[in-house]
Amino acid sequence: MKRFIVLISLTCALLAGCKTQPAQVAHTPGSDVLVLPSPNEMLYAKVYLDQDGAPVYELFHADTPVMLPSALGFELRGTVKYQGLEYSGSEILKPDELPPYMFNSGFEVVDVTFDHFDETWEPVWGEEKSIRNHYNEMLFELRHKDDGKLMNIRFRMFDDGLGFRYEFPDGQPLVHFVIKEELTEFNCAQDNLAWWIPGDFDSQEYEYATSKLSEIPEVFPSRTNQYNSSTTLYSTGGVQTSLQMKTPEGLYVNIHEAALVDYPCMHLLAEGKNLRSFLTPDAEGWKGRLETPCVTPWRTIQVAESAVKQLESRMILNLNEPCALDDVSWIHPVKYMGVWWEMIAGAGSWDYTNAASVKLDSFDYAAAKPNGRHSANNANVRKYIDFAAANGFDALLIEGWNIGWEEWANCNKDYVFDFLTPYPDFDIDALNAYAHSKGIKLVMHHETSSSVRNYERHMEAAYSLMNKYGYDAVKSGYVGDIQPLGERHYGQWMVNHYLYAVTEAAKHHIMVNAHEAVRPTGLCRTYPNLIGNESARGTEYQAFGGTVPEHVTILPFTRLNGGPMDFTPGIFEQNLKEWCGNDSHVNATIANQLGLYVTMYSPLQMAADTPEHYAPFMDAFQFIKDVAVDWDETRYLAAEPGDLLVIARRPKQSSLSGSAKAFSAGRDTWFVGGVTDEEARTADFALDFLTPGKTYEAVIYADAPDADYEKNPQAYVITRRNVTATDSISVEMARGGGFAISLRAL
Amino acid sequence: MKRFIVLISLTCALLAGCKTQPAQVAHTPGSDVLVLPSPNEMLYAKVYLDQDGAPVYELFHADTPVMLPSALGFELRGTVKYQGLEYSGSEILKPDELPPYMFNSGFEVVDVTFDHFDETWEPVWGEEKSIRNHYNEMLFELRHKDDGKLMNIRFRMFDDGLGFRYEFPDGQPLVHFVIKEELTEFNCAQDNLAWWIPGDFDSQEYEYATSKLSEIPEVFPSRTNQYNSSTTLYSTGGVQTSLQMKTPEGLYVNIHEAALVDYPCMHLLAEGKNLRSFLTPDAEGWKGRLETPCVTPWRTIQVAESAVKQLESRMILNLNEPCALDDVSWIHPVKYMGVWWEMIAGAGSWDYTNAASVKLDSFDYAAAKPNGRHSANNANVRKYIDFAAANGFDALLIEGWNIGWEEWANCNKDYVFDFLTPYPDFDIDALNAYAHSKGIKLVMHHETSSSVRNYERHMEAAYSLMNKYGYDAVKSGYVGDIQPLGERHYGQWMVNHYLYAVTEAAKHHIMVNAHEAVRPTGLCRTYPNLIGNESARGTEYQAFGGTVPEHVTILPFTRLNGGPMDFTPGIFEQNLKEWCGNDSHVNATIANQLGLYVTMYSPLQMAADTPEHYAPFMDAFQFIKDVAVDWDETRYLAAEPGDLLVIARRPKQSSLSGSAKAFSAGRDTWFVGGVTDEEARTADFALDFLTPGKTYEAVIYADAPDADYEKNPQAYVITRRNVTATDSISVEMARGGGFAISLRAL
Repeated sequence: MKRFIVLISLTCALLAGCKTQPAQVAHTPGSDVLVLPSPNEMLYAKVYLDQDGAPVYELFHADTPVMLPSALGFELRGTVKYQGLEYSGSEILKPDELPPYMFNSGFEVVDVTFDHFDETWEPVWGEEKSIRNHYNEMLFELRHKDDGKLMNIRFRMFDDGLGFRYEFPDGQPLVHFVIKEELTEFNCAQDNLAWWIPGDFDSQEYEYATSKLSEIPEVFPSRTNQYNSSTTLYSTGGVQTSLQMKTPEGLYVNIHEAALVDYPCMHLLAEGKNLRSFLTPDAEGWKGRLETPCVTPWRTIQVAESAVKQLESRMILNLNEPCALDDVSWIHPVKYMGVWWEMIAGAGSWDYTNAASVKLDSFDYAAAKPNGRHSANNANVRKYIDFAAANGFDALLIEGWNIGWEEWANCNKDYVFDFLTPYPDFDIDALNAYAHSKGIKLVMHHETSSSVRNYERHMEAAYSLMNKYGYDAVKSGYVGDIQPLGERHYGQWMVNHYLYAVTEAAKHHIMVNAHEAVRPTGLCRTYPNLIGNESARGTEYQAFGGTVPEHVTILPFTRLNGGPMDFTPGIFEQNLKEWCGNDSHVNATIANQLGLYVTMYSPLQMAADTPEHYAPFMDAFQFIKDVAVDWDETRYLAAEPGDLLVIARRPKQSSLSGSAKAFSAGRDTWFVGGVTDEEARTADFALDFLTPGKTYEAVIYADAPDADYEKNPQAYVITRRNVTATDSISVEMARGGGFAISLRAL
Repeated sequence: MKRFIVLISLTCALLAGCKTQPAQVAHTPGSDVLVLPSPNEMLYAKVYLDQDGAPVYELFHADTPVMLPSALGFELRGTVKYQGLEYSGSEILKPDELPPYMFNSGFEVVDVTFDHFDETWEPVWGEEKSIRNHYNEMLFELRHKDDGKLMNIRFRMFDDGLGFRYEFPDGQPLVHFVIKEELTEFNCAQDNLAWWIPGDFDSQEYEYATSKLSEIPEVFPSRTNQYNSSTTLYSTGGVQTSLQMKTPEGLYVNIHEAALVDYPCMHLLAEGKNLRSFLTPDAEGWKGRLETPCVTPWRTIQVAESAVKQLESRMILNLNEPCALDDVSWIHPVKYMGVWWEMIAGAGSWDYTNAASVKLDSFDYAAAKPNGRHSANNANVRKYIDFAAANGFDALLIEGWNIGWEEWANCNKDYVFDFLTPYPDFDIDALNAYAHSKGIKLVMHHETSSSVRNYERHMEAAYSLMNKYGYDAVKSGYVGDIQPLGERHYGQWMVNHYLYAVTEAAKHHIMVNAHEAVRPTGLCRTYPNLIGNESARGTEYQAFGGTVPEHVTILPFTRLNGGPMDFTPGIFEQNLKEWCGNDSHVNATIANQLGLYVTMYSPLQMAADTPEHYAPFMDAFQFIKDVAVDWDETRYLAAEPGDLLVIARRPKQSSLSGSAKAFSAGRDTWFVGGVTDEEARTADFALDFLTPGKTYEAVIYADAPDADYEKNPQAYVITRRNVTATDSISVEMARGGGFAISLRAL
């Protein structure tokens, strides 16, 4: 490691880009001020100990402060005594009654080390063929003056932002410790505009609020009355990451975390324009149990000069460890359909009977009266297999195949599923054989109902069953309150579980798509069999009352910052009432739904509607057939959170399959997608990403002139024209609309 | 089922033994009073609804009220809403903020059914060859008048006590529900003398207090400053079951529970002379998650006219379900030694290095410096194997064989053990081969450090490893706070786990001896591979400061009421200071320790001291070699909790093994044991249990005249004489002493 020390005293603050201090200073330097610039020197951080020995950082973009002096550190649990009179009357010992231990001041600097790193790596799947990981690094080594306990803070400054993490080295007085709270501050220099969802330890399934940071507590109450199967709000100042902000100067600043492993997920608490970390507690209120040597996840502050540059940032992935799997040959992108939307909308059911309670070890399903609404039945599944096979899909998800759905989430039920036993009308052997004969793989479904111990008890057998029948991907779900009660979806205990499910799956060569799990933090770089996550408000909410059109223009800045989302686009029938009596309306045009296949990146991409709903629109459905799901190159052509997205992508030839392969294999192709919010907009963009000199046939799937997500969502027009790299395209997007374009060199 | 109804109105209260009401009546009958007598009609219960529709019972022994009117029922969690503003400022939703639902009044009687049952069954192992299960039963079927929810209460009246449980039938409005508190009252008729330990959701490892019920809150604080690795006290009125009491009239009354399955363990709360149930909470404070149809464990009130009759009671076993295992041929009693006491006392260590932290997936034990104190090393284990084999034992326990002990309990560590990897100096393959070559089985040890998820994740592999090497018994341990934090050793989540460990073990033909687990409730009848439990203050505390001598005279009335205890008797060297610098003194004479092999029933019986400590006393050790551990017949010759015990037992010929087989096989033998408290006492008893007309050689292992547990614990005398059934024996027991006798027909 290149090792040199740069110490810049206060008296030479003009050196190395040290600008004037901002007006509002919460912390006065009490040590030399260290400066860490980005490789392109547009960003830099100042790091120092303040007069109390508290570690502090500041972040600047050129002349502009992005983060004012912000303190770092922890409050730890004090020493616990295990004997004596640790009770009071009828009260159980509470965490707050233990003396805390402040580990956020009183430090002295042991050493400072700088380093530089530059490499390019290739993801197993992704938005581009290769990713550059380029940063300057500073290791700030601290010792607590009172007791010699050690804590280091590692800073990595990229051109697209700052990452830092706490590191607790080996061989020191601190060995086992419990976090009461992480005290990381993000003191924004301005009262930024923010796209945020309420802080919640159990759910991310919210629409986004747009407000200034200082307005969050006022706006908060109006944002929480949304249906979630499990929810734990903690403060009207609470918001979640990835938090996208925009400064008055037009900088896009995003706070998130990277490489969340064996640590509670970080939420934020807003006070004015200041944010601070607020970790997810365990059942007793503690926020992390650690053992040295160890590191925290990276805390990230991405800074971009435009919305497009924010989308281009791969800082979260870069801060994760390289791939940990020796063999990734079995991991592949998947375009799939599902026996799913009809249950979500209410046209069918997951359960097989109307029994009020079923005990899996004694209930006799064979003798039970079917409710006649069970979607995962042999005939229906075969219909989907036929349609998926005929249209060149890779796979078919079937939910509700296994016994137990009569009383799944929030029944406080431990043994809710066995993940092994099909309902009587689901012939797992025959259906897999039939699907395989047609080139379709079935996608396993493991809804856990958040009875996590029960899932782990059955996991090995469940994965082995998948191997037996040839399933190679599983959608897992965590609906309802976590059992044991008191644990939270985003606490350390569950974070540990989600990764356990992924690493155990890898041993079985199984890809995981976990719903209701903790939000992604780039771990798919290290474990690329984590091929998808929900962890946000997905398409299903279009059947749960509907979702505002702007939602899909925000997700790529927030939720997708950490990894791909199984958003499940492709709804062609917006009138759920007529179909199945559901009062919800799907707030999107068909063209918008097509655009999502490009704008909402995922290597696991669903066509979520039913064969019946696609049948009248097979010309539009052609785009879903043609589009790839894994890419060698991506161009963000236009972007603004809450307004619109236009993105162009070039397929990765090596991972093409099915109908996408038929369209693109050996051909020079691109796909462009666009979506808008509730406003009609025109997308104008040059095709300069095309290979110069070649002519491409463009098939443009656009909203019809009279299209409107509320009144006329199914009106689209498909036009074909030949274009070259010197051409531009202009497409009208209806309210709640969008467009999709396939481009194939002639 | 025999079905008849007996309804006795208030106006015919003189019928069927209805006695005058006690002076203090908390509940006035509002319905007919039902009477359920015991088969011998000495005991009877009255059952009725009071004027509020609350179910009430009373219990009488002959003319004497034992339990005054005591109410039954529950407070349940109210309906939980999953949406809306269920937060307040920065507060997380707390259970108490939900509206409760009282399910303890407002009932009407649906039906009452009486039944009678009489059968004799044979336990796989036990204190006698066969057990009579004989009771009158009444099913009290109730419906809540407001909402039609159903709750039945099933009463079983034996000659030795009353058992009742709540039953929630199928097909009713109550399906899934959460208990806030079980409201079962035990309103004692008198201010009984009680032998009790403090109510604690995590530990039972206390010495017993002896006080009147009304004195419990006053005495409580002086009883809690005892070392426990995990402890959660809840009230100064809290006590645990099995609670042994003695009425002023001399009746022995014991409150416990039977068949604790998937339900929190019941504690008690004392208020004056009244007791009520106080269930172990989960992390959020709830006390049980149930789904109809379901039943609670049995609540038991044993009533005996003498201490001996209390010990003769098999009511707890009788209230458990018959054996659930088809094949029990692999289950067998075990007399064993252990590489254990030297670590407990401090002469050796479980850990192999002095490393402050070890991460199992990266720490290099092979390269680590050994601490030189590791007891589970090849040479030491071979020494124990040699000694155990030479003396006809069945098995040898070795603790500290596997990696991870450097930081085990209460380090808040998730991945603390893998249960698979031996320390470098423990050659699992060679040691098992060596042991087997000498007729010794090794006993596996699975300390979990209460990291329960981690244990379950490794359980299948750990049990499979045992099968591979031929281990057929495991001692498991749950030292330290339960992880996830907030769960308790005696909560429903853990109760579920302990049984899971037993049933999974049965699949592998493995016997389980769980330490620090929930106290036994007779489940060994149903799962006889649950061959032992600690779940009380065992011999180890003699090295943790010592235990008062009376402790062993109380345990058979309390802890052993639910099943056998792995008490680990047989300490011959009381001076730990001289041995290894431990300041504790073992408060027992050698003769007392021998007596425990008879008085402290267990089919898994240890000789806990080291070969070196036995070597000088091999004449006394002969009793440990000769004594059996499984019995066809037991006679309680003298008993008083806190004072003394004298018990005689006749071996079960079919389960003899090793040196016990050499002594008893094909012979008519008996063993007698006696223990006293801190007072010297004379045990006088007739030998009328011997076969008339036969002459037996009696070998009497008694305290020497100058023996004293404090001053001269190793002084014993061994005498031999021939006796017949018409003889009596008188033995002097020293302070903290006892005796043991083997009797073999000539």
